[in-house]
Amino acid sequence: MYRITKPTLLLDKKKAIQNIKRMAEKAKSSGVTYRPHFKTHFSQEVGEWYREQGVTSITVSSIDMAVFFAGHGWDDIIIAFPVNVLQLDVLKLLAKQVKLGLVVESQQVIESINSEIEESVDIYIKIDTGYHRVGIWHEEVNDVKGLGESVAKPHVFKGLLAHFGHTYSEIKKEEIKSIYQYGVGALNKLRDAIDKNLKISIGDTPSCSVMDSFENVDEIRPGNLVFYDIMQVYIGSCQYSDIAVCLAVPVVAVYPERAEIVVHGGAVHLSKERLEDAEGSYFGKVVALEEKGWSAPLDNYRVKGLSQEHGKISVPQNQIEKIKVGDVLGILPIHSCLTVNLMKEYMTLRGEKIGTMHL
Amino acid sequence: MYRITKPTLLLDKKKAIQNIKRMAEKAKSSGVTYRPHFKTHFSQEVGEWYREQGVTSITVSSIDMAVFFAGHGWDDIIIAFPVNVLQLDVLKLLAKQVKLGLVVESQQVIESINSEIEESVDIYIKIDTGYHRVGIWHEEVNDVKGLGESVAKPHVFKGLLAHFGHTYSEIKKEEIKSIYQYGVGALNKLRDAIDKNLKISIGDTPSCSVMDSFENVDEIRPGNLVFYDIMQVYIGSCQYSDIAVCLAVPVVAVYPERAEIVVHGGAVHLSKERLEDAEGSYFGKVVALEEKGWSAPLDNYRVKGLSQEHGKISVPQNQIEKIKVGDVLGILPIHSCLTVNLMKEYMTLRGEKIGTMHL
Repeated sequence: MYRITKPTLLLDKKKAIQNIKRMAEKAKSSGVTYRPHFKTHFSQEVGEWYREQGVTSITVSSIDMAVFFAGHGWDDIIIAFPVNVLQLDVLKLLAKQVKLGLVVESQQVIESINSEIEESVDIYIKIDTGYHRVGIWHEEVNDVKGLGESVAKPHVFKGLLAHFGHTYSEIKKEEIKSIYQYGVGALNKLRDAIDKNLKISIGDTPSCSVMDSFENVDEIRPGNLVFYDIMQVYIGSCQYSDIAVCLAVPVVAVYPERAEIVVHGGAVHLSKERLEDAEGSYFGKVVALEEKGWSAPLDNYRVKGLSQEHGKISVPQNQIEKIKVGDVLGILPIHSCLTVNLMKEYMTLRGEKIGTMHL
Repeated sequence: MYRITKPTLLLDKKKAIQNIKRMAEKAKSSGVTYRPHFKTHFSQEVGEWYREQGVTSITVSSIDMAVFFAGHGWDDIIIAFPVNVLQLDVLKLLAKQVKLGLVVESQQVIESINSEIEESVDIYIKIDTGYHRVGIWHEEVNDVKGLGESVAKPHVFKGLLAHFGHTYSEIKKEEIKSIYQYGVGALNKLRDAIDKNLKISIGDTPSCSVMDSFENVDEIRPGNLVFYDIMQVYIGSCQYSDIAVCLAVPVVAVYPERAEIVVHGGAVHLSKERLEDAEGSYFGKVVALEEKGWSAPLDNYRVKGLSQEHGKISVPQNQIEKIKVGDVLGILPIHSCLTVNLMKEYMTLRGEKIGTMHL
């Protein structure tokens, strides 16, 4: 068994592999490509767990991340973030090495790619179906068509790419499904108006989790599902028991009189991502660490505040006397991607260290 | 001049040194020791700028940080975080190498130190004067006295240490001063009831910034002031022009129809620390980058949302046409400590890279 002495990100490998497998099987039975987003785990080793499930193409969210995974044997990568024209020199190098997919939404950027990148890249036009973060509104058929036509050889206008990020504001399965269906319908209509050979790539974790199958799309890109988190439980994408990462935190102070404890585990470990309920904000759910992982969330424990290194947790009055300085508790993160990014390293339940691109 | 191609944390060295100098002079004229908190900058090189102002003793917030700075020539270090008894082995080693100050608030921890650490360490008892995060309530004279008496040789009960963190909830100078004065008064009363030789160590950036001088304390420990940030402007600790770090972010998408832009600069760069106003949450203030640094915050620009890599900024309608993909803007962070922790590296206005303990 492992020994914890300071804030440590535990990774339940079995759960993570189950999560990957579940989505890989759903994709397979729907006949769609599973191109997982690697911005959740940042890790070469976790990447291999996907490869074992037959995954050969991936999604990343930054050029740095593409460079990292290209350096670790991944040769089919979409950077699902609007092209940063200030880094075209790096993209030129990447395009020589891997089958590179780039996401664009403006004439200016397509022209830069046409003139600067010699090797063929796949161009995906980003389509907005309601999230309103990036992309061209799906009804602007002529704009999308015009952009597609401006892609010059050797580059290929490959497809329409969307992220239904507004599913993150929903907590009812039916609402999530309806966002998904609206989005897929809109993308199909747009594709049919332009070129039936275009690929449709979609993929947020909430809709990919709640849908039983994927019709009329070619590719799904969910990433968070490898670990899930409290946000995804809140949305309804998963159960607590699916969450595969947990921050182990030493107790450093106990206050019986106000039924509170302080742990070493703060904003530099968990991030300040929060959820709200009737009592205000909370920053994670407390679990007990166990021989083979961790418990379900403990009732009436509340991570009520985080400062840089401190986590402040309220505890039921009848349990505070049992907690001692030097005990170790677990916190399930609100947003696992941000927690992993901060922690930079995992420890499996067998005590093995697993690195990320940040080490 | 430097060239920006991706999210980059700019550091205005001149402003940072001015900020350090201002506080060093105020401490000197008050006759108190300036023991700055290094949890804001994490950097050996920035540490040297303090040394040039006569600083020889420092504060850190974790054992890892103490190990880092001990390895870079700092030999008088207080770890201003409740002792984590699971890391006593590291503290034993540190105590052999440096003059180590530890913060305690329970009998259990003092006994662990007494029995496990051979070299003399300075024990500071953490006192709560109203923040209610950690520490013993200042009116519990007998508790504090009893704890102090249980410190066994070669260790020394050196002083009372407090953090007036509740100043962060105030936005009026008089309220901040009143928290400071209440706290210092309480600490003096407690000290006088126990042992007049005990040191009094205090130090949050808001109160150290708004006080003109420091009476009846021995030591101040503010850290954030080296860079300041939007939170400190909001509280009233500083002016925008004092902020010494700025995240440079490339523009990757422009939406004239909704007067919004998207930049490469998200939660993995700035953190999700936020402030609230009548319009909701915001995550930083936008500035223009200039030859010699950056402008004052641009009117009516709003960092209205951050996802992992994206920053969504609303822009005045009459200015949106001027902004192009590939432009670079600056964002002054809400909380500089968390932004530095994420960015891991600075670039000065002369284009020099400066590292931190995270590299």
